Amino acid sequence: MSELINQQFRLVARPIGMPKRSDWNYVSEPVGEPRDGEMLVKVLQISLDPAMRGWMNEGKSYIAPVGLGEVMRAGGVGRVIASRLPKFLAGDYVSGDTGVQQYCIADGKRFQKIDPKLAPLSTYLSVLGMPGMTAYFGLLDIGQPKPGQTVLVSGAAGAVGSVVGQIAKIRGCRAVGIAGGADKCRWIVDELGFDAATDYKHEDVKAVLKQHCPNGVDVYFDNVGGDILDAALARLARNARVVICGAISQYNATAPVAGPRNYLSLLVNRARMQGMVVFDYADRYAEAAREMATWMAQGKLKAREDIVDGFESFPETLLKLFTGENIGKLVLRVAAE
Amino acid sequence: MSELINQQFRLVARPIGMPKRSDWNYVSEPVGEPRDGEMLVKVLQISLDPAMRGWMNEGKSYIAPVGLGEVMRAGGVGRVIASRLPKFLAGDYVSGDTGVQQYCIADGKRFQKIDPKLAPLSTYLSVLGMPGMTAYFGLLDIGQPKPGQTVLVSGAAGAVGSVVGQIAKIRGCRAVGIAGGADKCRWIVDELGFDAATDYKHEDVKAVLKQHCPNGVDVYFDNVGGDILDAALARLARNARVVICGAISQYNATAPVAGPRNYLSLLVNRARMQGMVVFDYADRYAEAAREMATWMAQGKLKAREDIVDGFESFPETLLKLFTGENIGKLVLRVAAE
Repeated sequence: MSELINQQFRLVARPIGMPKRSDWNYVSEPVGEPRDGEMLVKVLQISLDPAMRGWMNEGKSYIAPVGLGEVMRAGGVGRVIASRLPKFLAGDYVSGDTGVQQYCIADGKRFQKIDPKLAPLSTYLSVLGMPGMTAYFGLLDIGQPKPGQTVLVSGAAGAVGSVVGQIAKIRGCRAVGIAGGADKCRWIVDELGFDAATDYKHEDVKAVLKQHCPNGVDVYFDNVGGDILDAALARLARNARVVICGAISQYNATAPVAGPRNYLSLLVNRARMQGMVVFDYADRYAEAAREMATWMAQGKLKAREDIVDGFESFPETLLKLFTGENIGKLVLRVAAE
Repeated sequence: MSELINQQFRLVARPIGMPKRSDWNYVSEPVGEPRDGEMLVKVLQISLDPAMRGWMNEGKSYIAPVGLGEVMRAGGVGRVIASRLPKFLAGDYVSGDTGVQQYCIADGKRFQKIDPKLAPLSTYLSVLGMPGMTAYFGLLDIGQPKPGQTVLVSGAAGAVGSVVGQIAKIRGCRAVGIAGGADKCRWIVDELGFDAATDYKHEDVKAVLKQHCPNGVDVYFDNVGGDILDAALARLARNARVVICGAISQYNATAPVAGPRNYLSLLVNRARMQGMVVFDYADRYAEAAREMATWMAQGKLKAREDIVDGFESFPETLLKLFTGENIGKLVLRVAAE
């Protein structure tokens, strides 16, 4: 094992605006030996998420920032190749906090076994992973949609948004999505069964929402912030719930975050806006995964992953999230097996 | 009665920025006779509230705007001088939607009897009226403070804010107020029993809040919006509740409303921000009034009214709310008896 080489991306600068290649250090180092209570995992696929941009900033947030010089934090799936832990054996497939590297040594606390016979590995990074959990608990726990109500979601062709809309349909709601580009809009309506979609890059979102949400929006699940959050606030129904899950439009902004000008719609409509962090639901992940796996088996819930090959392309591939190039969950394949 | 003259302020222009005298028409007309199912009320005191500024604007809100040419909407207290309604008799004291005028004819639906022996008339416009109800239900129903938690309120020397802080203390919370000027700050701490206050006109609110709310803010009751809302968001504790009751700093703004830049604090802190409109609690006003009257009798809850004489001064007196001149509930006295 000491002959194995571990390639890593370490954060070496706090980006201003979009992350640049020079914000990373591409490092090769020998793979160490797992000590007692540790295991060595070969990383196969890495989850690329908008939240990663936030972890690169200094300052207080819901999780500590990645330190300068540290391997970039990321979720991933891999195969255990050596273990000195009772819970995991060599050959096991696992998901957990691998980081952006080819091998990781871990104490197993933030890892769980996964079964590649039940679902493709990448699905454990999408519907059965963090994005799926975020959609499930954000929509059902915070959004609390009732049958017949209208659920609007932004970033609707993304890893979280695409699941939000499908769960809304399963729960008997009208699902309306906001996405960038005609392809994405077509996909969420034709393939995922959303009732309607609006293309924010080419349409007047405020006007189209009026048409697609004639009775107002009962639940708005926000992944983007900015002008789209304002447009959604302007369409709230009485007693609406706004789930603040992310604000991708603001993550690379060099100007101060734009606050939602229409926040007084919360007053007029007796509505509430609430933030959510998926980690708070860790003790209920298994329950959610079981229900979502059932929906997938029944053909009611579809997963789509946009898998990019080539570990070295990490800095550029990550940017696809912010330029809106990916459809579905963005995954970086590190190794085939 | 037909010899009585009714002076009125009618809205004749939609103000831009601060309301001007030319936005009103001062009209005199003979007092009409109440018909079957109506009563005639001599208006004694009128409640001046920040919300009135919103009613002067065109467009959708939680209540229809005052129409151009109509008597300005206002709550008030008065004495019935003639009645063709079974529920009210001549001589009864009442509170209700009197409008900004000296006499009103009403069908009684939005009026209730009050007892001037139990509390001064003006108290029925403050603690026992809309501001008191707003504080009570906004804090307890939406804010849901628990003993030992920190409740922060802006507009803390105003009709609503001063009651919010006192109820917070009654419920075993730490109460911190934001007000404009040393006099107001002194009053809420020394007279009303707030634990601390910050003078936003002369202090760095963000820095002072750090000191006064060392464990963060569990409930923030917002009457003002703008920079102060942002400062409060920056201090939220985990699972905090933000009650959006008003946004007086924005009511006369000619630029678009400033959205809260720090709204992502809701995400980081798993907090929620919720709007409230007091009218939704109409069927529970009596319950709240009973409890607050008891607190007043026990000396735990103090009412303060800033009573201005002279009906004709209405346009200028209203502005005291926006320049921050009044302490406690602003009331316009129309007639002594």
